[in-house]
Amino acid sequence: MSSNWLLQVAYDGTVYRGWQRQRDAGTVQGELEQALTDLFGCDLRVSGCSRTDAGVHALAQQVSLCVPEYPPIPPNNARKALNDRLPDDICVRSIEVVSADFHARFSNVGKAYVYLLAPHAHKHPFLGRFSWTMPRNLALAEMQRAAAALIGTHDFTTFSCVADRDDAGNTRTLYQCRVEELDGLLVVKVVGDGFLYRMVRRIVGFLVGVGSGRISPEDTGRLLAARDRNGGFCTAPPQGLFLYDVFFDEDQRDSWELEVMPLLFPPRP
Amino acid sequence: MSSNWLLQVAYDGTVYRGWQRQRDAGTVQGELEQALTDLFGCDLRVSGCSRTDAGVHALAQQVSLCVPEYPPIPPNNARKALNDRLPDDICVRSIEVVSADFHARFSNVGKAYVYLLAPHAHKHPFLGRFSWTMPRNLALAEMQRAAAALIGTHDFTTFSCVADRDDAGNTRTLYQCRVEELDGLLVVKVVGDGFLYRMVRRIVGFLVGVGSGRISPEDTGRLLAARDRNGGFCTAPPQGLFLYDVFFDEDQRDSWELEVMPLLFPPRP
Repeated sequence: MSSNWLLQVAYDGTVYRGWQRQRDAGTVQGELEQALTDLFGCDLRVSGCSRTDAGVHALAQQVSLCVPEYPPIPPNNARKALNDRLPDDICVRSIEVVSADFHARFSNVGKAYVYLLAPHAHKHPFLGRFSWTMPRNLALAEMQRAAAALIGTHDFTTFSCVADRDDAGNTRTLYQCRVEELDGLLVVKVVGDGFLYRMVRRIVGFLVGVGSGRISPEDTGRLLAARDRNGGFCTAPPQGLFLYDVFFDEDQRDSWELEVMPLLFPPRP
Repeated sequence: MSSNWLLQVAYDGTVYRGWQRQRDAGTVQGELEQALTDLFGCDLRVSGCSRTDAGVHALAQQVSLCVPEYPPIPPNNARKALNDRLPDDICVRSIEVVSADFHARFSNVGKAYVYLLAPHAHKHPFLGRFSWTMPRNLALAEMQRAAAALIGTHDFTTFSCVADRDDAGNTRTLYQCRVEELDGLLVVKVVGDGFLYRMVRRIVGFLVGVGSGRISPEDTGRLLAARDRNGGFCTAPPQGLFLYDVFFDEDQRDSWELEVMPLLFPPRP
């Protein structure tokens, strides 16, 4: 007998080579599996919901794993023991017991990402590792129009980074795509049913192209239809990106709102 | 003819050996003077209001300096040009022209410091460089009683770090000394007319001693009266400390309130 656990994990991704375990590099999955293996005294492997890239942060990476019956460790005790073993920049926020057929990666119905842009006129000395500093100010209203035009079900090849290796194709649904000003920063919020490799960072690169006046918001539909990965905009750097939430329920996904700035998220007791 | 400028400077102190210029180490004053010297084409020296220690941050270090008449550079242009030259973790927020007899260090009537404590149960993966993580939870009400007992004019020798080298002695006035819960953190706020070397960090170390149950809040008056630097508590580490504001006006000082979490301070345009 074993049981199936769902862990919610937050991390500052700055020093890690991303989520996914690698043989010779520090990764968040690697650190977490090491802490679990120490705690249970046997090799344990976990499955994360989003393979965040090097330098990308998470407030709520969702991780499922099978834990052995022995030693019996209540989830809340395990959470504390794991936090003692993990580095300061990785935190297990909660652990719940889930049904045997639950799998973080396949059971989720969507994810929310947040990206922080720091306009240059408002140099933020404390946010270098958590935002993309802009060389200029950006035209917010234009960015908002372009963002709105991305909402809906589209073929997102234009916003992908590699040739399609997935049988399901490149069609995804964005439920929210917004840009707002908050505390002197521009905050990009994206909620979707699934994301292509680097798709959020490509969307942010596109929106910055619009905000800089290099791309017209009216061209959004044409760029989507062109299905051309060389769309004349860059991929935003990783440090501004936060995996903010993962949804296992459609209502929760469709009513999602940013509650706090990612840096100050309220830790769950 | 030269004119007297007052710069307001914010910085993440993590990588610097403190504010004050040193021959062989990176300091905030050193970086700022280098940027000013580049800009004006002549050696310039500045005077800061608070010699913050290595690892301590500032939202509003106040810096005065005499700038030459030539080249004539309007303050707002100088601000932008300095921000381009300074590293990402140092920001000139504003520059104003002040009267010739103004001196940041001698004209101020007080300062506000903020210290962030992260209780362990609420591990904050993003705040490692900006807070002191506690090995346990702290008794907030006890800390609040001890903090209130420090308000007023006292000999603060107990909260000093080195023998008195100052003719004025160790008497200082605290106008505010409070501990509050905010976003899962404990925030210590201290406003005073002046501070001994490491006095804020000693006060925070004392309050943590109280919150941990090692010191009774009722002993605060006795500890002050003892004037003993070996008071049985530690000096809090630097990374949780922010110089939050400097006052040149008593009303401003006496009505000070924390407006935002230090990390998200609203940059002035």
